[in-house]
Amino acid sequence: MKRPVCVLGTGRMGSSIARTLLKAGHPTWVWNRTAAKCEPLIAMGAKGAATVEDALGAAEIIFVNVLDHAASNALLKRDRVASLLAGKTVVQLTSGSPRLAREEADWLGAQGADYLDGAIMATPDFIGRAEAALLYSGSSRAYEACLPALLVLGGQTSHVGEVPGQASALDTALLTQMWGGLFGALQGMALVQVEGLELDMFRRQLLAFKPVVDAALLDLVDRTARCRFAGDDATLASLGAHHSAFQHLLEACEEQGLDAALPRAMDRFFRQALAQDGADADFAALAPLFQRNGMTHDAVA
Amino acid sequence: MKRPVCVLGTGRMGSSIARTLLKAGHPTWVWNRTAAKCEPLIAMGAKGAATVEDALGAAEIIFVNVLDHAASNALLKRDRVASLLAGKTVVQLTSGSPRLAREEADWLGAQGADYLDGAIMATPDFIGRAEAALLYSGSSRAYEACLPALLVLGGQTSHVGEVPGQASALDTALLTQMWGGLFGALQGMALVQVEGLELDMFRRQLLAFKPVVDAALLDLVDRTARCRFAGDDATLASLGAHHSAFQHLLEACEEQGLDAALPRAMDRFFRQALAQDGADADFAALAPLFQRNGMTHDAVA
Repeated sequence: MKRPVCVLGTGRMGSSIARTLLKAGHPTWVWNRTAAKCEPLIAMGAKGAATVEDALGAAEIIFVNVLDHAASNALLKRDRVASLLAGKTVVQLTSGSPRLAREEADWLGAQGADYLDGAIMATPDFIGRAEAALLYSGSSRAYEACLPALLVLGGQTSHVGEVPGQASALDTALLTQMWGGLFGALQGMALVQVEGLELDMFRRQLLAFKPVVDAALLDLVDRTARCRFAGDDATLASLGAHHSAFQHLLEACEEQGLDAALPRAMDRFFRQALAQDGADADFAALAPLFQRNGMTHDAVA
Repeated sequence: MKRPVCVLGTGRMGSSIARTLLKAGHPTWVWNRTAAKCEPLIAMGAKGAATVEDALGAAEIIFVNVLDHAASNALLKRDRVASLLAGKTVVQLTSGSPRLAREEADWLGAQGADYLDGAIMATPDFIGRAEAALLYSGSSRAYEACLPALLVLGGQTSHVGEVPGQASALDTALLTQMWGGLFGALQGMALVQVEGLELDMFRRQLLAFKPVVDAALLDLVDRTARCRFAGDDATLASLGAHHSAFQHLLEACEEQGLDAALPRAMDRFFRQALAQDGADADFAALAPLFQRNGMTHDAVA
């Protein structure tokens, strides 16, 4: 007998989660602010709940996937709902910040409930597949107890730590790396277009250059993890070599009238690291500037 | 009989180039400001030149790989050297900006010489291999004439366009995409470290998340190439969804006292695109803001 669950919020992601749990044999209650969005799930065998209280009634694991933590709080932080939470586990899949996760874990603890903060590193169509990655943080006891149901949602399910905010932090960090690369591409595309090159050429060379970029990224992570910031025989390109090439980006932006806000912000980090560690340092010498108390704006003004 | 060549500048990259041309059977003259750096090449059969003039004498293709364009100009833009350039092709492998490439092409044209601007998307140890990518721009006639020698240096050799600055622009653009991803990783690593997570966990999840990031990058390039900025059924995540998740990064930086210069600069672009195109637009709606006359600082202050 699979454990009874409920899913609060049946938008695209929530519906995919409910559908996947249902198919795996979990008795599944569903609730959504717009009830019509539950109908396809009810037709598949889910139990429609008129209120959040009804949805919670029999469920042991409560999956939440709504717009944001404010919307989630509006659902759970009401007397009649709060009194039903003791002994249950709330799996919060709404994306949020580490602080919101900590606050929610504290509040649920006070209600006698367990809290798992989840981050879904996949699109709705990937839910339930072996390659879908979902990250959880919070009590490992609660995680182990829910694991059979969690594994239903994705084969790449990991418990990243006991601290409630860690899944959100890791989620945000991975997205931050992605946004960096995407904004870099936006800037780079403007540069080739203004020189009259087609983006198909940029795309082709981006793929050809990819092994170099991937290697540089992993090298940066490995060096930062081990604080290996000095240049050495294995340094792929020194800080000075990077910064020298980087000047061509600043120059091209200025010459062509392209927005240089991001390159200028990066240049300040480069100059600060060069001043501290010299041109022969590894690119990873930039890492301490990003860490807490690394670089203040006053220091580089 | 392979065409005689010379290599000006025999640092790590220049030495690798000279060695590879020599092995392929090209009569190769070498010159370096510090003559001792030519000795290992001379031992392999290269002809050492005491002066740049001597190096140029018999060479039909002149490879230049020195510190920067200023150093290159100091070698070539002298009367006794300039008078030897007519009928030869200068392959400039020193990294530079599009403007420097245009200026050098003009000056060499006036001397009756051809110019190819080259960008080496590989480290010295990859020179001569099938997978080494080298990009060239400038006269396609000159490129075709030099192609047998250029192919010796790398199997992934491409002529990207007739405009001299195009290889430099493409080189800089590819590096810009890389720097974006690396700075994103620096910011992301600070975020997970401050929440008490190990970077080995970040590394592992970075690899798991990679297919999503790679797909988002290529989708961005394809949409920008075709000006498909509106949200549609194939939109991976809307501008509004990205920006909503992005707020967690800003919040976490503020809460934890991390430098937010780069996220704040990105946030200005997000807000400008959201104001113009709305939350349902595709992430690619950011692209026009980076293009010439896209967004000025006054517009987002």
